[in-house]
Parts: sequence; structure tokens; C-alpha cells
Amino acid sequence: MTSTAVGVEIVPSFVQDAWWTPEGEVAGTDVRDASTGAVIAKVSTEGLDLAAVVEHGRTVGQAGLGKLTFHQRALKLKELAQYLNGRREALYELSHRTGATKIDNLIDVDGGIGVLFTFGSKGRRELPNAQVIVDGPAERLAKDGSFVGEHIYTRIPGVAVQINAFNFPIWGMLEKFAPAFIAGVPTIVKPATPTGYVAAAAVKFIIESNILPAGSLQLVSGSARDLLDHLDYRDAVSFTGSAGTANMLKAHPNVARGGVRFTSEADSLNAAILGPDAVPGTPEFDAFVKSLVTEMTAKAGQKCTSIRRAIVPRAVVDDVVAAVGARINERVVVGDPRAEGVTMGALASLEQLADVRAAVQSMLDAGGELAYGTLDSPQAKQADGAVGVVEDGAFMSPLLLTWADADADAVHSLEAFGPVSSVIGYEDLDDAVRLAAKGAGSLVATVATNDPAVAQQLVTGIAAHHGRVLVLNREDAKTSTGHGSPVPHLIHGGPGRAGGGEELGGIRSVLHHMQRTAIQGSPNMLTAVTGVWHTGADQNFGDVHPFRKSLYELKIGDAFRSELRQVTLKDITAFANETGDTFYAHTNQEAAAANPFFPGIVAHGYLLLSWAAGLFVSPEPGPVLANYGLDDARFITPVAAGDSIRVTITAKKITPRETDEYGEVAWDTVLTNQNDEIVATYDVLTLVAK
Amino acid sequence: MTSTAVGVEIVPSFVQDAWWTPEGEVAGTDVRDASTGAVIAKVSTEGLDLAAVVEHGRTVGQAGLGKLTFHQRALKLKELAQYLNGRREALYELSHRTGATKIDNLIDVDGGIGVLFTFGSKGRRELPNAQVIVDGPAERLAKDGSFVGEHIYTRIPGVAVQINAFNFPIWGMLEKFAPAFIAGVPTIVKPATPTGYVAAAAVKFIIESNILPAGSLQLVSGSARDLLDHLDYRDAVSFTGSAGTANMLKAHPNVARGGVRFTSEADSLNAAILGPDAVPGTPEFDAFVKSLVTEMTAKAGQKCTSIRRAIVPRAVVDDVVAAVGARINERVVVGDPRAEGVTMGALASLEQLADVRAAVQSMLDAGGELAYGTLDSPQAKQADGAVGVVEDGAFMSPLLLTWADADADAVHSLEAFGPVSSVIGYEDLDDAVRLAAKGAGSLVATVATNDPAVAQQLVTGIAAHHGRVLVLNREDAKTSTGHGSPVPHLIHGGPGRAGGGEELGGIRSVLHHMQRTAIQGSPNMLTAVTGVWHTGADQNFGDVHPFRKSLYELKIGDAFRSELRQVTLKDITAFANETGDTFYAHTNQEAAAANPFFPGIVAHGYLLLSWAAGLFVSPEPGPVLANYGLDDARFITPVAAGDSIRVTITAKKITPRETDEYGEVAWDTVLTNQNDEIVATYDVLTLVAK
Repeated sequence: MTSTAVGVEIVPSFVQDAWWTPEGEVAGTDVRDASTGAVIAKVSTEGLDLAAVVEHGRTVGQAGLGKLTFHQRALKLKELAQYLNGRREALYELSHRTGATKIDNLIDVDGGIGVLFTFGSKGRRELPNAQVIVDGPAERLAKDGSFVGEHIYTRIPGVAVQINAFNFPIWGMLEKFAPAFIAGVPTIVKPATPTGYVAAAAVKFIIESNILPAGSLQLVSGSARDLLDHLDYRDAVSFTGSAGTANMLKAHPNVARGGVRFTSEADSLNAAILGPDAVPGTPEFDAFVKSLVTEMTAKAGQKCTSIRRAIVPRAVVDDVVAAVGARINERVVVGDPRAEGVTMGALASLEQLADVRAAVQSMLDAGGELAYGTLDSPQAKQADGAVGVVEDGAFMSPLLLTWADADADAVHSLEAFGPVSSVIGYEDLDDAVRLAAKGAGSLVATVATNDPAVAQQLVTGIAAHHGRVLVLNREDAKTSTGHGSPVPHLIHGGPGRAGGGEELGGIRSVLHHMQRTAIQGSPNMLTAVTGVWHTGADQNFGDVHPFRKSLYELKIGDAFRSELRQVTLKDITAFANETGDTFYAHTNQEAAAANPFFPGIVAHGYLLLSWAAGLFVSPEPGPVLANYGLDDARFITPVAAGDSIRVTITAKKITPRETDEYGEVAWDTVLTNQNDEIVATYDVLTLVAK
Repeated sequence: MTSTAVGVEIVPSFVQDAWWTPEGEVAGTDVRDASTGAVIAKVSTEGLDLAAVVEHGRTVGQAGLGKLTFHQRALKLKELAQYLNGRREALYELSHRTGATKIDNLIDVDGGIGVLFTFGSKGRRELPNAQVIVDGPAERLAKDGSFVGEHIYTRIPGVAVQINAFNFPIWGMLEKFAPAFIAGVPTIVKPATPTGYVAAAAVKFIIESNILPAGSLQLVSGSARDLLDHLDYRDAVSFTGSAGTANMLKAHPNVARGGVRFTSEADSLNAAILGPDAVPGTPEFDAFVKSLVTEMTAKAGQKCTSIRRAIVPRAVVDDVVAAVGARINERVVVGDPRAEGVTMGALASLEQLADVRAAVQSMLDAGGELAYGTLDSPQAKQADGAVGVVEDGAFMSPLLLTWADADADAVHSLEAFGPVSSVIGYEDLDDAVRLAAKGAGSLVATVATNDPAVAQQLVTGIAAHHGRVLVLNREDAKTSTGHGSPVPHLIHGGPGRAGGGEELGGIRSVLHHMQRTAIQGSPNMLTAVTGVWHTGADQNFGDVHPFRKSLYELKIGDAFRSELRQVTLKDITAFANETGDTFYAHTNQEAAAANPFFPGIVAHGYLLLSWAAGLFVSPEPGPVLANYGLDDARFITPVAAGDSIRVTITAKKITPRETDEYGEVAWDTVLTNQNDEIVATYDVLTLVAK
């Protein structure tokens, strides 16, 4: 479509750290108001040097992000979230033009900012304050411990190209941007044309905030043209949209053969299964109906996560249809989101409306029957309050279909990307699992049941076909975040038709922007590479107790070894009496000896931990503020009366906090006995002042 | 190539739990002895119903494996490893025909069995004795805790198609089979034609062992023909071989658009970087040269992990070339592996030999210079001891090339898949990183240095371009498993040219055969789905202390809550004196109050842990045998003198052992104070008799 409107502004791109629009007169593509059809903007990337955009990310973007640690990047996301939080109203206003209602805006704008807050928090709580992530424990590869292996993650050395869908211009951008940014990978975002002006407005705020390092975010408003021609194995593309476009992108030689990392998230025929126990009158039945209506009408059903297939016991199909119809009649007002009382807005464009109607017609031709709603243009409330049919508005009635044949291919494969769902009946739980799986891979399914056995069978039966499964019952019906809403803590994506991708899921999505590499070497070399002390690496037993060193004075490998202290039977007995832990292994010689693991009476594990603290403590006030926990404590060799123990602690991980005057130090802790056998191992976790 | 030999047997396939060969006379493809050129077998899948093979895996295979837990599957791998261990000689004999020397056989046969042992062990030590894996902690999604989310892995509901390379017929098969089997996914293995008879011999042993459930392993000896036509998003293909074949497979519509999970591992131009500190005369220089010669000659250089590019300080290029030449002269004897003293066998076939010679010629044409060896047919030792040029033997001299231009494209992109390496010079560490990255994605690199700063800079600089990096120094030179040898504990694969895949890496590769799914629901429902108790789920405070229940009597959620016990200043002081832990927060009111985290003198975290044990203990001999550890202990609210504590324990995870009369029970443990505030949380780990 070329522009027919005169004087309409071109949505700018932000590239190479500057705003850009084409020079001179360009045709461009029109962007229209969803409710009125008025042309409100146009987009064009004519003349944009996309090779330079990629190169800018790979050089300036990588360099700027490379100066920051995970914590520093996460903190910037938090600051950005706070900045955008104060500018939501402007984004809401703009979003209404896309057909989004107030509630839709909460999902898109507030939801997007929420992703930044979550990653801003998780990036600091769950990652080291460093640039390398260690994945899993070290593996001893030589008997003498001189050769060990483990895994690290380092950021991919290219750019993250993010191609987004039209339905959530803000959330869709921020949910992909946040994990790439924390990983340290520069983003090139390419929003969908119909709603890209909303994303551009958000980018304008982001840039003016001056929070991000140069090159870390670029925006391409308009066609991505030859962008993929400039990518290689160092880069990642994450796409959200139709399966057709996903397949086109995947067929690009640089993806198909060149090693570009590609992930996609596509619409799918998401199911909601009503358990056999959730008969009409139960809270689960009501929650199921409510969820179905919400998913049909929120964002006018233009959500890749919307429920397309309600799979219910055959006996209650009619009850479900009746209840859904009643709830729509009671709750749903179609119209311009700027009008008072409207709860379901327009589709994003007239083209979308035509597509959805055509898809529904195909479903009706294939055996579907219209159980609620009409394909005719509905009465819609306009911004001025008038109600009627709006010729240029992309309005549609919610539609519910039923199917005589629950196995009809069309109900499991045809998607009408609007306010359209189908209800089909199942025989038993195996049948329900089978029908849900006929979607051939979905983003999400709901299982409504209050029976744990039903939940177990349905969820484990369908899980491998889904990226997310929500169990809805009376306990969470009120507090659930809903079938259709991905949360930043949990992965979003799904196998097969859903695109085979995985986004969000907290730090999981950060790792998708990094390369996992196995590293092998001596403990000293692995310590050097990771910045984490490894068993067998050099220790510095200096004159100063390491607890007397501030966080900044302390070095990885600084260590302290205590003297031996003997444990007597009297000590064990006293400890048993004082603590009340009179377990027979500590109090009864004969019974203890009969236990397969003990030679006779042994010291309590808790006695060993407590004495170890007494052996390593440096009592006077100093930089070590608190011992806030223990990790991975294992009692390995029993300590009998007469044995002695000593403790060795070594600074293992040092994590300064960005916003506090202290940080965490994890101390590798080893208890040994008089024969140098290992008695216990654990990490002592402390807070240490800077 | 069609068969010209009469009376040569067809290598059988094993499908639908029966041995299969084509009916009647079929042409088939000849398979030849690598050292003599004699036709020793032929392969054909003419008439094989590959749709039925896939269906058998999806039905019978999935059903049989679905009856077993991870531990049960792992135990079967261990049994299988033991069975094959006693039959190695027969496999060695057969392998010699492929050109494999004794040492090559250790890598292939013993290495393959070693993978089974490792997975047999890891599957039981690192996975639950169940069918669902929980990934990461639960996330609280509602403030009141009624709605939580987490991630689970369940096996993919299809088959694992494993297409292997010719160079390691046993290891290549078993390293892909083991993780699929533990995941519970049936395997269809398709070995490479030139050496598939060795894989078939191993499968014969595996089947006769009768250890595996029906349908869990099928073997296709010969062309895979239309196999991929029958796969969809439920299935996975893992391929090892050339980039060309990988790209062909990736372009199959079921992979490109149908959602078949595809991973590939391809040869790459692996680098070895000599650190600037590792000058001639250092142990690192010697280890580097030794490793380079080993990688050139083991398996006649036909390893996807072989070193192709030695990247060394420009000043020592000549020293490296001289040292490599000297070592080859001293150590390498080319010939039939069945002959005494031979250390480097034939390439796998005459076709391979022609390919390698052509590749070397291209490298010479592009600026490479031959610094060691000749392209002429070498003198080779034959099985009878005679030495000379063998017309039909695929023998070749090791070749070392040098390059005036270290940036010549050919050295970074042309691979001669034989005993061929190049030496290039670098300026400084940044230059070394840049040159290594010019390989555009590799399986593995070696960094030879004894300088921690050099190791840190080189390893983190090249990691994102590599699947594995080995740091070689004087500490691990003797114990290292070597540049070229993937180990089952660590991932094998790499980005870009290396195929973008990831295999092995312990449980990581099991997870690649499973779908990660986010699950959301109430704590009770998540408990039901995962079999692991979740905070907020129902607890059963029965009359019987849960420590009095055997492993089989105990149920998830069985719980015990103690009375309150008051902590006095006297108790704290006594504990400080007895343990020696006189940290000021426990002994000095003024100093303690000045600490930002404490109200004044507080009880030791170790006192709380010890008293908790006294509060939850059931002292008399019974099913609980030992408390072998603690996980994730966190001290949350300080306990001051006068406060009281109580403990609540709940059975969280129950893990019966397959081969012992007991199992592990993890107890969720929460300490609360008199105001029901949480004082500490941790898991108590116990061994409990069945």
C-alpha cells in the first residue's frame, strides 16, 4: 500500500545513535487508526543502510555493553522502568488508536514496563556481578584433581534482531529487549508496521532518558529489507508473528545455512480443558467460562495466546456454550476504546478483519457451527458515544463455534486471529490429551480442575506439546495472572506450530543470548577464567584473617585454616542434651553401631557446623557483617569421639552490590579430621562491607 | 556405487524389534576395508518401511520407556555398559578394518562404553527417580502465595533420529543414544555407510543382551531415504557429519517448516593458541607440540575436533614447525592398524583420500606452503609387516602447512579432513582472538599458557565462538583428556560452522530430548503435577511422626510441627563458649546493635539449626538412618534473647534408590518465631530405609 495521505509524518528509525527518516519524498506504507480508518502515519526505510546498523551494534553496541556487568545492566533496566512508568499516559493515548482498550494497555504498556522491573531485579539477584556465568558444578576429569571441566556462558558476539508482532508494540519490544540487554547483546528492534508508531514513541522516551549505553538499542521503523543479509552465526533473530513469515525468515540462507540463531513465537491453537470434576456449579466451571470470555475479547482476541479450542466433557458442551454466551451478553461492549464503557476494541486493521472473517467462513465450511455471534458487522460504540455499524472500523462480534466432530481437522488447524473460539467435546482424559495434542504444538493450555489426579494426568500428558500450562481451580481463580498473559518469570513460546521458540522465563532468556562453552583446565586456570575459586586452586594463607579484609581488599583464594579441635564423648553428650537432638546415633553406642553408616556414637552434623564456625570466626567487629546462610552442606565422614576436626575456608565468590555498601562473599568451607579425610563440605554465605 | 562383489553379506537393519534385510537380490552399496580396499559388506534399505519404523518408536518405544523412571533407565545403561565391556575385543577386530588403530579403538569402543557408564551414573545421581524434571525454583506469582509458577521437563513425544558420522561408529552411536534413552525417547540410529557394520555389530550385542525395552532402539543400515518425511514437531534429529549434508537435512520441509527439532555437529577449523609465555623450553610449548601431533595423527586426522589451525606468536612459528616435524619423525608409523607398531592408520576410504588431497591442493594454491610431509603416497606398513606404497590403501603422510598471510581466507575456511594442520603467526592477544574467531564457529580450541591473565583474556575472548576450550599448562598436561576428545560430562558441539548443536554435557543432553514447559497453579496442583511438595500446599500433621514412617509409607506432604522453645541470653552465651563462635553479634550487645542487620545480641544461625534438629528429632532407631546434609539454608529474621522458635518439617522429595534398601528424603524445613515470622528456611536431607 502506498501513501495517499498528504502531510502525514513518517515514523522515524533510530539507528547509529541518531534519529533517521528517509530523505526527500518517499512513498512509504500507510498506518491507520483501527477504529476510524484515518491515516495517521506512514513508514519507510527507503535508503536506510542496514549493513551499517548491524555493524554499529556489533562494534559500538558490543563495546558499550561490554563495559558493564550483569548487575550494572540490570540496574539500568530498573532505572528505565522507573522512567517509563512516569510516561505511561502518553503511550496509552497513542495505543488507543491501535484499537487497544484500557485493559489491553495494561497488558501492553504496564506489562512491558513490568518485564523491565522483573529483569532489573532478577539480573541482580540471580546473576553474578560479572560478565561470565558459570553453569553447573565443576566436574573432576582427572583422579588427582589437576584437570577439571565446567561450563560458562558468554554473550554472543553480534546483535539481537527482534522482529515483533503488531498486537503488543510495547510489551513485545521490551520482553525481547530486556534479556538481550542483560546478556550484553545490542538490540535492533523492528516493530510491525500497523502499530510501530507506538513502539517508536516508547523508544523516543528510552533514548531521551539517556540511561542506555550507545549502540545498545536501534529501531528500524518499516521494512526490514535486506537486514538478514548482514547477519551471521554471531547474531540472533527472534521473531513473533505468523508461521508464514517465520518460515520465510527461516529459509533465508544466513539462517538456514549461515548459523544465525533463530527463534520464533507464532500463534497457535491454544486449548483450555475442563476437567470432568468441573461440572456446572463448581468454581472451576465458572472460572473456565470467565477465562474463555476474557481470552476471546481481550485485545479483540488478537493474542497469540488466546484460547481457540475449549475441550470439555461431551455432556457439558451445551452448558459451556450457554454460559459463555450469557457472560458475553452481560459484559462485552464492542467499540472505539476511547469511548466510555467499551470493553472490546477493534481489530488492528480492516485487512485483519477480512482475514478473520475468511478464516471463520472456512471453519464453518469445514463443519463448524456458529453457537454465538454473527459474522455481520456489529453495532459498535464510537468515540462520540454513538452506536452503530462503523464502515471503516475493524469491529467484529465475538464468535463461538461448536463442532459435531471433535476430530475435524479444521478446528485443530485453522486459526481465526480474532475474537473466535470453538467448543469441542471429549470422552475421557486420554481423549482430552489426544485432542489437545492435535493442535500440533501450542503456546499455552489451561486445565480447569480441582482434582489433583486429573491435573497430574492432563498436565503431564499435554506438557510436551506446550510451552506453558495453567491449572485453574478454586484456589487460584482469583489470583491467577490468566491463561493469555505470559509472565516474565516463566517461559513464553512453544513447540511445533507455536514456533519452537522460548522467550522470557527469567534468566533463561538471558542465556538464550549467550553461548554455552565447556572449559577444561587446571583449577588455577578455571579460577582465572571464571573469577570463582575452584577446589585445588592456589590458596593464600596470609597473615591477615580474611574476615578482617573489606570486600574490596579481599581476593579470590584468600584463605584461613584453623587448628585441630578434638571432639570428646562428653562434648557430643552435652550437645545432645543442650540442643535436644538425642538421636540414637549420638547417644546410644550399640544402636549407633547397628546403623549402616556409623562406626558407633558420632558427633552431630550440627555440632560440626557449629564448632567450625567457632574455629573460623574472627570475633571482633569488622567488615564481615553477617553469615546469612549455608549452601550445599554435606556430611561425608562421620566423626567419632576422640576424632579431631579443623576447618579451612577460602574466598570463593565475591559479589559487590551496586546499590549497597556491602556485598556477598561465598566461602568454600571444608572440614577435615586428624587424618586429613574430608568430614564435611559447604559454602558459608556472608555479607561483607566494602 | 553398486555392488560388484558376489556373496558379500548385507549389513542388517534392526527395526520393529526384529532383524531385517532386503528380500531377494538388491544392488546395495559396497563397503570396503580401508587398508586393503577389499569389499567386506554391502548396505541397502530397499523396501524398508520407514514410516512403520517411526510409528514403532512412537508407540511401542514410547510405551516401553514410559514405564521406567530416569533411575531405572540409567541403571539399564550401566548394565548395558557392563555387557558391552566384556565384548570389546570383537568390536576392536572389526574396527581395524575401518583403518582404526588400537588407540583409535580406545576412543571409539571404550569411549562409547564410557559414555554409557557416565550417563548410567549421572542419571541416578543428578535426576529424580521419576519421569518429570523440575527446572529451577518455584516463582510466587500472587502475593498471597496461592498462585505459583515453575518449569518442568517432560520427554518429547516422538523419536530421536540419530544420523552418525563414519569416523566413530560406536562412540558416535552411544553418545547420542544414551541421553535419548535416559530422557525416555526411542532412538532410530542411522550409521554412516563406510563403517556402519561396526555399529551394527554393537547393536547386535545390545539386542542380544535383552536389557532394553522393546522399541527403544532401532537401526537403519543404509540410506535413510524418506525417513524425514515421517517426522514432525514431536521428533528430534541429531546429525553428525559434513556441513553440506547438514544443510540438506535442515532444508527438508519437516525441519524447515514442520518443527522437527534439529541439531547438528559438523567439522570445524579448530584452533590451538600458544600463549606468548609458552616459549620453546617451557612445559606448555612441549605440551602444545605434543597435542598438535596427536590431533594430526589420531584417527589419521579424521576427527571433527582435530586441530586445523595452530595460532602461535609470530616469532616462534619456525620453532613450532621444527618441533612438530621432529616429533612426527620420531613417533608416527603409517600403516595397516593390524600391523605391529603402526600408530597412524588409513583414512576411511580411497574417496576420503582423494578429497583430502584435493583440499590440500586448494590450500597450497591459496598461499599455503608445505612445511612438513608430502602429498605423494607414503610408505605404509602392511598387515604382513612389509613396507611400501599400497595402491588400494587409503594411506597418507601427515602434513603441516605454513602461511605467509595469517589472514588468508583459505586457512580459516578450507578443511582437509585428514592428517593436515596449518601454523599461522599472531601479533598480540587481541590478534590471536581475532584469528581464532575467523574460523566462524568451532567445536573446540586449546589455549596453551601458564599465565592466568593470558588464559582469562584468550578464553573469554574466544568462548562465544566455541563449544569447548581447553587450557593446557604444566599442571594438566599429563592428566588432560586431550584437545580432541569430547568427554560425556561436557558439551560437544559449537556455533556457526560447527553446526550450532550441543550434545553430551551430562544431563544437559538429556534435557535436549525433553520439552521445557512453564506450569502455573496453586501449590497443591503444582505438588500433584511434579510429585514435589510446594510451600503452601496441604500438609498432613498426622499422629505418627513422619520420621517413624518407612520410605514407602511416607507421603509427600507428611509433616511435623514442634512446640516453641525459648532462647535465652544464657543459651546464646553458653553456645558461644562451647562452640568458640564468639562473634560480637552473639556476645557484645553494643557492637551487635551497631551492626546494620541485628537488633542487638542474636542467637547464632548454627544454634538455630542445632536446636531445630532437637525439636524435630525422633530419637529412637527407626527408618530415618542419617541426616547427610542441608541445602539452601537462609537465616531471615534474627532471633534475640527472649524470642522463641519452632520448627516445621514437611516431606518434600522422596527418591527411592534402585539398588539400595533406602532412599533420599528431602524435608522442607521452616523455623518460625513466636510471632510466626520466618526465622530460617532450608532443606534437611536424610536417608530413609524402605
